[in-house]
Amino acid sequence: MVLAGGVGSRFWPVSTPSRPKQLLPLASERPLIVDTVARILPLVPVPRVRILTGAALAEPILAALPELGRDNLLVEPQARGTAPVLAWAALEIARREPGAVMISLHADHAIAPADVFRALLGRVGRLAQTHARLFTLGVTPSRPETGYGYLRVGAPLDDGDAFEVAEFVEKPDADTAREYLRREGYLWNSGIFVWRVGVLLEELRRHTPEIGERLGLLERGRVADFFEQVPVLSIDEGLLERSPSVAVARANFSWDDVGAWDAVGRTRVGDAAGNVAVGDAHLVDATGCVAWAEDGAIVVFGGRDLVVVRAGGLTFVAPRERSAELKELLKQLPDRLARPEQ
Amino acid sequence: MVLAGGVGSRFWPVSTPSRPKQLLPLASERPLIVDTVARILPLVPVPRVRILTGAALAEPILAALPELGRDNLLVEPQARGTAPVLAWAALEIARREPGAVMISLHADHAIAPADVFRALLGRVGRLAQTHARLFTLGVTPSRPETGYGYLRVGAPLDDGDAFEVAEFVEKPDADTAREYLRREGYLWNSGIFVWRVGVLLEELRRHTPEIGERLGLLERGRVADFFEQVPVLSIDEGLLERSPSVAVARANFSWDDVGAWDAVGRTRVGDAAGNVAVGDAHLVDATGCVAWAEDGAIVVFGGRDLVVVRAGGLTFVAPRERSAELKELLKQLPDRLARPEQ
Repeated sequence: MVLAGGVGSRFWPVSTPSRPKQLLPLASERPLIVDTVARILPLVPVPRVRILTGAALAEPILAALPELGRDNLLVEPQARGTAPVLAWAALEIARREPGAVMISLHADHAIAPADVFRALLGRVGRLAQTHARLFTLGVTPSRPETGYGYLRVGAPLDDGDAFEVAEFVEKPDADTAREYLRREGYLWNSGIFVWRVGVLLEELRRHTPEIGERLGLLERGRVADFFEQVPVLSIDEGLLERSPSVAVARANFSWDDVGAWDAVGRTRVGDAAGNVAVGDAHLVDATGCVAWAEDGAIVVFGGRDLVVVRAGGLTFVAPRERSAELKELLKQLPDRLARPEQ
Repeated sequence: MVLAGGVGSRFWPVSTPSRPKQLLPLASERPLIVDTVARILPLVPVPRVRILTGAALAEPILAALPELGRDNLLVEPQARGTAPVLAWAALEIARREPGAVMISLHADHAIAPADVFRALLGRVGRLAQTHARLFTLGVTPSRPETGYGYLRVGAPLDDGDAFEVAEFVEKPDADTAREYLRREGYLWNSGIFVWRVGVLLEELRRHTPEIGERLGLLERGRVADFFEQVPVLSIDEGLLERSPSVAVARANFSWDDVGAWDAVGRTRVGDAAGNVAVGDAHLVDATGCVAWAEDGAIVVFGGRDLVVVRAGGLTFVAPRERSAELKELLKQLPDRLARPEQ
């Protein structure tokens, strides 16, 4: 399962509702979703890959992924967050193969090396067959990030990299995040999950009445009614924070959720001075800059740690460190600039 | 006389051969040349104003200055630097009024307040009637600028603001410029001159054979031949460095030769954070930035002391302090970017 329904504005002005982040080449020269599928294919055969997305993105996604077809898509009738869509996906799999292990990925993460990632997923997949747990992959924090969920690592589950989760904390404040970074034993929740479909459905029935009470609609094929009736709910808040059966496997690969322009400077291969140039962009005597030229050339001369973007008739310039605050910026801009597509 | 022949690239990518610096609103919301003429008109009646420029700029200049007509233009057959064109201008004036005092201004300087400037020009003009001197206006240095000529102030010429020039040094190196800044008694040569036309012509005959020997061509009306035969020569190098008759009046107004994008931040009125926005430019949480939007909007978020320009299908970003090095940058860019008009 590849979650590919997002329509965020974190890569404004390049990302738009019809061309969201997962369709942009933010971590390599291919769109993130193409990287994501290519990374998993050696482990999961094409007929078992499903892309979860909305109707508006079905065509662009299939265009980016010619090896996939309509059968590989699960098109949600409306966006209700991750919990409803994962419940639906699990039920669809369970119809065909009740004991199946499901891997849930995000279409817009940067992960490397791919073989290390696949090997860990393979090990966790085998653990999921024998353990009635909701496995998540946990990433060792490298900064006091306040935008992620954190996991407190509990008792070992085996003699390898899997542990019980002692506590699940969604998006801590800055002080708490710094404390977690200082102490050992806290991991970021990557949002990459591995579980038997039956375990997920059972846990939803136990802890998530908002969904559990409506699974009957899905079982009777009333998908549109299900999405109409369920509230917006994330799997983190709706289940992982409530269930005692969450386990974590420590990630041994590099992971980035490509959450802001700054991430492009970390994930895409740059020049010797750490600059990333996309399109007709020229960085002269610049250091650590990200330049994205879609609409005419960009020349950056002597800048340091800047994001410079030209797209959709608009030029955007900011220090990389401010790029995570894009939402705040967009609130202060006139609509014609903040939402040029609407 | 307003020298308006320049075709430099200091305001790339906005300035082009057909739209040079003097036609851009760099110091106010009007083009520099419009400011320059408006500043002088209360002192000099329209029939006595002459704009010295090349054939390609005649139409754009008249379009920018509807109060002037063709009679106000002196169109040089070819660009040979300031010395030949000032000799020609002086001769044209001398034909009509041999004792006339000539004021030579640059079309692309930022000067304020205008009335203080005019009052000084009036005083120096009266001095020039009685003193056989080449007067220049000297500006108190505020930084160790290596792009200007410097004057060492000598003995007082009157009991006011005029002095003999003891030494004229064209474009010193950085160490020398710092030394001049530290010591008192050195002034920048503003390039604004006041002299009787007869004095200029006599001094050229004495010290500038490259021109003096060819004045006969001008006297016989062979203007094209004169410009064909004279070498390229600036009035500074060709005469002011050679003549013992140079005098200086201390400028008591603010002066900027608007030599680079950085100057726009100094001369145009900015917001409370020192940002200057031209066109559809939006500066949010930015400080000391210059944003010039000709071709779609610009949004600068959180930047400090940056120049951000969009014009001619090209985006240019640099720290303001590097904008004086534009020529070096352009050498490193492909021609299609560095000279988009050609």
